[in-house]
Amino acid sequence: MPEAPFVPVVPAGGSGTRLWPLSRRARPKFLLDLTGQGRSLLQLTLDRLAPLADRPPIVVTGRAHVAAVREQLDEDVRVLAEPSARNSMPAIALAAAHVERESPDAVIGSFAADHLIEEEAAFARAVTAARDAAELGLLVTVGIAPASPSTGFGYIESAGDGGADPALSARLRAVGAEPVVRFVEKPDRERAEAFVDAGLRWNAGMFVVRASVLLDELAVQIPALAAGAREIAAAHGGAEEQEVLERVWPTMTAIAIDHALAEPLAAQGRVAVVPAEFDWDDVGDFAALARQFREREGAARRGEDGTEVHVVGSASVDALSSRATVYGSTDRHIALVGLEGVSIVDTEDVLLVLADEKVQALQQLVGRLDEQGLGRLR
Amino acid sequence: MPEAPFVPVVPAGGSGTRLWPLSRRARPKFLLDLTGQGRSLLQLTLDRLAPLADRPPIVVTGRAHVAAVREQLDEDVRVLAEPSARNSMPAIALAAAHVERESPDAVIGSFAADHLIEEEAAFARAVTAARDAAELGLLVTVGIAPASPSTGFGYIESAGDGGADPALSARLRAVGAEPVVRFVEKPDRERAEAFVDAGLRWNAGMFVVRASVLLDELAVQIPALAAGAREIAAAHGGAEEQEVLERVWPTMTAIAIDHALAEPLAAQGRVAVVPAEFDWDDVGDFAALARQFREREGAARRGEDGTEVHVVGSASVDALSSRATVYGSTDRHIALVGLEGVSIVDTEDVLLVLADEKVQALQQLVGRLDEQGLGRLR
Repeated sequence: MPEAPFVPVVPAGGSGTRLWPLSRRARPKFLLDLTGQGRSLLQLTLDRLAPLADRPPIVVTGRAHVAAVREQLDEDVRVLAEPSARNSMPAIALAAAHVERESPDAVIGSFAADHLIEEEAAFARAVTAARDAAELGLLVTVGIAPASPSTGFGYIESAGDGGADPALSARLRAVGAEPVVRFVEKPDRERAEAFVDAGLRWNAGMFVVRASVLLDELAVQIPALAAGAREIAAAHGGAEEQEVLERVWPTMTAIAIDHALAEPLAAQGRVAVVPAEFDWDDVGDFAALARQFREREGAARRGEDGTEVHVVGSASVDALSSRATVYGSTDRHIALVGLEGVSIVDTEDVLLVLADEKVQALQQLVGRLDEQGLGRLR
Repeated sequence: MPEAPFVPVVPAGGSGTRLWPLSRRARPKFLLDLTGQGRSLLQLTLDRLAPLADRPPIVVTGRAHVAAVREQLDEDVRVLAEPSARNSMPAIALAAAHVERESPDAVIGSFAADHLIEEEAAFARAVTAARDAAELGLLVTVGIAPASPSTGFGYIESAGDGGADPALSARLRAVGAEPVVRFVEKPDRERAEAFVDAGLRWNAGMFVVRASVLLDELAVQIPALAAGAREIAAAHGGAEEQEVLERVWPTMTAIAIDHALAEPLAAQGRVAVVPAEFDWDDVGDFAALARQFREREGAARRGEDGTEVHVVGSASVDALSSRATVYGSTDRHIALVGLEGVSIVDTEDVLLVLADEKVQALQQLVGRLDEQGLGRLR
């Protein structure tokens, strides 16, 4: 059983365009109820983490979203505001610095605010294993068994039963973890297939590590980042809190934790992976969402003529010979005929009709809203 | 040159469901601007006929649509109200009876209110030829050169250079017409292909005939129908006009002019056809409309990635890799990605997204609105 207290950290950033117009600059994906369960992805993430937390979880989000985040969460959750978006490493380092001051031996676990995991018990088992491994002084990640040779995710190669340090490997295996050989960035299709065949796992961006280990290692890799995070945390609650934040934050390197820490530490044999037993989805785009609905409730929704329509929202929908996902927040009636894998987002000011297999083109369409004088719709 | 005065007759009936939700029970297809020219199909029909008319045209429409029809048309157009829909023969017979009283030798030409013809000069030439042929005492129709072996239209077989009555055939040929052998109802695919190969033409429901000939022939075929039309017309403008209409109209056989007159007269060698030189479309459904737009302005609208989007209405639309037709009457922005042959109708209370190749299923969807408690949307 883990001894050190565990503090969940949830970086809630990113104003992606892949779920536009459902998500907007002012209403990012993590704030949305994309599953129709009445809970946003952020709320589902904290629901999942709350039972594992020994201290209140920390959410790090952009200033513009603090009020909306606060509104969705229990009072005990701490919300840290980023003055500007600087990728995941500064956000996680800042949370780690706060935790380190309060509980020097605490372990943090960082989990994205907008991913989807259904099997909570299996998730809890993986996190517990990762905490055990993290107490050995390692950076620990969770590896997802690939559902497909996706080119949209990075991969993790583990040493399996081997490992450069047999003693460490044995201790890791005892808690259900394995040494990581390397992280690989999003591959092309051919390499992705080879990775899946070779047993590599998806990198879901979950990192469990002792807060002090994270900051000490970061101090080696990018000293100003670790020092900045610790300086801001030290000023917290004091008279100069705001002044320090405004001065230091802009100097912090905008970088992902993968590049800042995970890759260099893996090269030193200082990273472990816990093979996850749960399904995971980053709900990255409308095609991923459609797949989610199909897998979760497909058969139950399928009509005689092959019609399978999933409705998120209050829209009244009638369909014939269609496979579609409808996100409807207006009171208009929606009629569908003959659609094959289409997502429809019906909002007050934007209507999107998108073929799921062409989902990657959406970003281009959103990208040119500004030049069309429609920036207010982003 | 024709001698007898010519009076266009336009039956504006039918509350079809194949263009729902653009067309509704209260706003039938003929009232809609489906071409984006700022004129409804009814207006375009009368624009086409006005230069040919020697007396004001007559529109026959349901009571519920009289006000809307009046609003769209010039003051001199006469609008007759049908107490109930009884197919085309009673409507045309009623108009013929009015014309017969005013100009006993007049020729009427009946044309649907919701068809599309672009080449007005060729249309005028065909009508002029049909008038000449009608003065020989025949029922005259216009035969459309088939653009495809459609199973959605009836066909007309002409005697070409032959004909049972060589003298009549010669007189018809002199004015650009041919004797009709028979009318054939909507065929299956195989027969349609054989018809096209054999040179048969589409029956577009255009009939040109002396008003008195129409009523006299009808008096032989269905006596009560001719007598009823003449009785109602005789009462027109008098004190008992309304009483007569209410009493007689319900007794008039609900039948199409094709079955009531055209088929029996063709069997007697009393029908002629003018081969049309113009393109014609009944804009029967969203697939037909999409085809219209593609043919009229396809190349000009085609973007680099194959995108070809036609917009009817004021909607702002942006599309990538899409072939689509958008009917947008709301001020919402419409974004399309990866659609292949899709029609989108965006109205205040209904949104329809329809694959053009599955257009025939739309009627089923509209048909079940009532049982879903959504009859108000029809």
